[in-house]
Amino acid sequence: MSRPRILIVGAGFAGYRTARTLARLTRHRADITLLNPTDYFLYLPLLPQVAMGVLDPRRVAVSLPGTLRRVRLVLGEAGGIDLDARTVRYTDPEGREGTLGYDRLVLAVGSVNKLLPIPGVAEHAHGFRGLPEALYLRDHVTRQIELAAAADDPGRCSARCTFVVVGAGYTGTEVAAQGQQFTDELVRTQPLRHGMRPRWLLLDVAARVLPELDERLSRSAERVLRRRGVDVRMGTSVKEATHEGVLLTDGEFVDTRTLVWCVGVRPDPLMESLGRPLERGRLLVDPYLQVPGHADVFACGDGAAVPDLDKPGRYTPMTAQHAWRQGRVCARNVAASLGIGSRRAYRHRDLGFVVDLGGTQAAADPLGIPLSGPPAAAVTRGYHLAAMPGNRVRVAADWLLDAVLPRQAVQLGLVRSWSVPLESASPELARVPGAPGTTPPSAAAPLPTPPDERHGTQEDS
Amino acid sequence: MSRPRILIVGAGFAGYRTARTLARLTRHRADITLLNPTDYFLYLPLLPQVAMGVLDPRRVAVSLPGTLRRVRLVLGEAGGIDLDARTVRYTDPEGREGTLGYDRLVLAVGSVNKLLPIPGVAEHAHGFRGLPEALYLRDHVTRQIELAAAADDPGRCSARCTFVVVGAGYTGTEVAAQGQQFTDELVRTQPLRHGMRPRWLLLDVAARVLPELDERLSRSAERVLRRRGVDVRMGTSVKEATHEGVLLTDGEFVDTRTLVWCVGVRPDPLMESLGRPLERGRLLVDPYLQVPGHADVFACGDGAAVPDLDKPGRYTPMTAQHAWRQGRVCARNVAASLGIGSRRAYRHRDLGFVVDLGGTQAAADPLGIPLSGPPAAAVTRGYHLAAMPGNRVRVAADWLLDAVLPRQAVQLGLVRSWSVPLESASPELARVPGAPGTTPPSAAAPLPTPPDERHGTQEDS
Repeated sequence: MSRPRILIVGAGFAGYRTARTLARLTRHRADITLLNPTDYFLYLPLLPQVAMGVLDPRRVAVSLPGTLRRVRLVLGEAGGIDLDARTVRYTDPEGREGTLGYDRLVLAVGSVNKLLPIPGVAEHAHGFRGLPEALYLRDHVTRQIELAAAADDPGRCSARCTFVVVGAGYTGTEVAAQGQQFTDELVRTQPLRHGMRPRWLLLDVAARVLPELDERLSRSAERVLRRRGVDVRMGTSVKEATHEGVLLTDGEFVDTRTLVWCVGVRPDPLMESLGRPLERGRLLVDPYLQVPGHADVFACGDGAAVPDLDKPGRYTPMTAQHAWRQGRVCARNVAASLGIGSRRAYRHRDLGFVVDLGGTQAAADPLGIPLSGPPAAAVTRGYHLAAMPGNRVRVAADWLLDAVLPRQAVQLGLVRSWSVPLESASPELARVPGAPGTTPPSAAAPLPTPPDERHGTQEDS
Repeated sequence: MSRPRILIVGAGFAGYRTARTLARLTRHRADITLLNPTDYFLYLPLLPQVAMGVLDPRRVAVSLPGTLRRVRLVLGEAGGIDLDARTVRYTDPEGREGTLGYDRLVLAVGSVNKLLPIPGVAEHAHGFRGLPEALYLRDHVTRQIELAAAADDPGRCSARCTFVVVGAGYTGTEVAAQGQQFTDELVRTQPLRHGMRPRWLLLDVAARVLPELDERLSRSAERVLRRRGVDVRMGTSVKEATHEGVLLTDGEFVDTRTLVWCVGVRPDPLMESLGRPLERGRLLVDPYLQVPGHADVFACGDGAAVPDLDKPGRYTPMTAQHAWRQGRVCARNVAASLGIGSRRAYRHRDLGFVVDLGGTQAAADPLGIPLSGPPAAAVTRGYHLAAMPGNRVRVAADWLLDAVLPRQAVQLGLVRSWSVPLESASPELARVPGAPGTTPPSAAAPLPTPPDERHGTQEDS
């Protein structure tokens, strides 16, 4: 018999771990193929540090071919999946179609930005799920401060140095906390008009920041945010977004050029196309991560609804921690289905959470022990270094340098607003004209200038 | 009297130094404005290290607002210059026009890629003058190796891992030397078919590499290149470039997907539009860097033809070293024209040259003392650290890490082939659809797939 073909779709936490573990378990007894739009695994939890200039983008991008021996990488985005014919169609980076067959399929397609039906948000907000978005935000924030420093009109200056973050979960809280630090540092070399200071707003409909954490940690994180100057508005969200700013649900209109959307994620819409039972958009699997009725199909990570064995009737939440650990179980069970080792059910124990608030501030509850301040910051950074599958020394070196040197801030201008739309099934890629799924701007009908770039000169500001 | 307005066009070596020195000399007695398409000064000599993944792009980009106090930055590209009306028109990053007036004008517009009338080169080659081009090349080389490693067909594999560099001056020699190192390192984790190895060709019509250096150094550099595996072909150039490869002047056809164009530079075409006397495209100035007949206009750097006082009838060559030192003299003379200090003529003494061949290899002749091997490498890196106006510690840290860690190699996919055309008056910017001076790809007529991306999947290779 020829070697069985294992196809893994997606190289996020779940897919990367599945591929790495399977390569180790099967040795040369199976052909492992990994289908992913990029040639790197993105360590998402550190994305806010890329956006705020602490880390360079390559630091959080771990090379797939460089770290996954015995795994064949196919660059492309999965399209139609045919569970009966056992094929997956995909579109390569140049827009051409290809098809891959399989004997075992692992769906680890992850999640994308969650949208809410709020007028103007899809046009004016940017999400936070991939490197292009993070680099866009880094450029954008730098540009706003440079333009604010050069602005003569107080109103325009104030709008440019006001930044609105919606969603006070892990990502939004980190973005606001680290964003305030970043912009404060920028204005030290480029002072604003007398008395003006960059202002970050953090909004959430929840009653407190980091609602997933215990209340004590949540309060201490909020204290750090407020002390730093972040305008924390709980119980508040956005009613409408326009070119000029955002209308809040409490009736206030905030002049701003920046709306960062961190309200959470939803499963990759690819899951819907399977025609299999879903749970809130996630593909239902059994505790062995198998799709009922398809013994050759497995799913894990954000895109899979995995029963929580400790809480009957519930499913494991969409977190990197679960995805990472499900990947390992999934690999074991795929191998077991090929006669290598034995399968086991997915059971999790919460290891706790870490939230990096920038500098020496953080909130963490490792193994349930609530920590804040420098001890939490040490745990947080140690956790990330331990959890990253590569690039550790370089990340640690960047942190060291950031602690002693001024932050680097330049606009590289490589990612434009229109190439990182909020509504995207593939936030890991910057859109380019002519690429699949894009409505490219054409010469005849130039793209409308996005709001952040419309006022993009010193002359008018 | 109100404060005189000094306008500096261009923030390369000459313009940056002029701005920095003028800010120091004039204190608050003049308004200094710097017009530049980017908000950073690019330390060009280290660009090959960005392309080959040693340094991150921000390392060689020194923030203008962050390092130039008392200088107002206007982001834009200079267009029409009216010496009589004393105005400079410019186009901002969003394509809108603006006008700046001046009492003193400093033209430091630099140079762009030199083209030669060789069929196919403008379409298939990429230059090496800005960060977008360097990042494009980094992605491109990584992609070629990944595709070569996955290729079944020996011919395709070989074409993908063949890289042609034209021009054996400083830049081309560094690119070929460091490129061979980079790709050799990549194939250690992604082995090619049996017996295959990445192959870099270095071509030049000259008889030896680095013809500007003394012959002994030139020979020793060539030995390093050959020992490393670079195919050095002197007395040879490109006759034609096609999708499939390049036809050399010696009749050989080389299958390749990569043609790097380092044949040199030409003055920014803006100089021609002035209607003033030129010397090979460079604006003629007197030894005080003043434009004859326009006491209020100065020029320096690659775009200016500065008389070489030690070699009557000749002009100083287009090098960063001259530009940097002319910037200082220019600032003094502008200040002198405003009654601050006294003017002086530009006189240079060659400080020697440094060529970084990667790893511990280099060629240098500091103060005329020829060095090669590790001593030259130490001098080279020390020279760069001393010469950079910022980011030194971070560059040194990256070098340290690169010496002990495997090179990071991922495709970030942010710069596409069509956005960095060889023929460009502004290689410092990535072209975007709808931007000024661009023929954007449109939905109706999609851009032809560039040769390097045409074969961009594993399936067909």
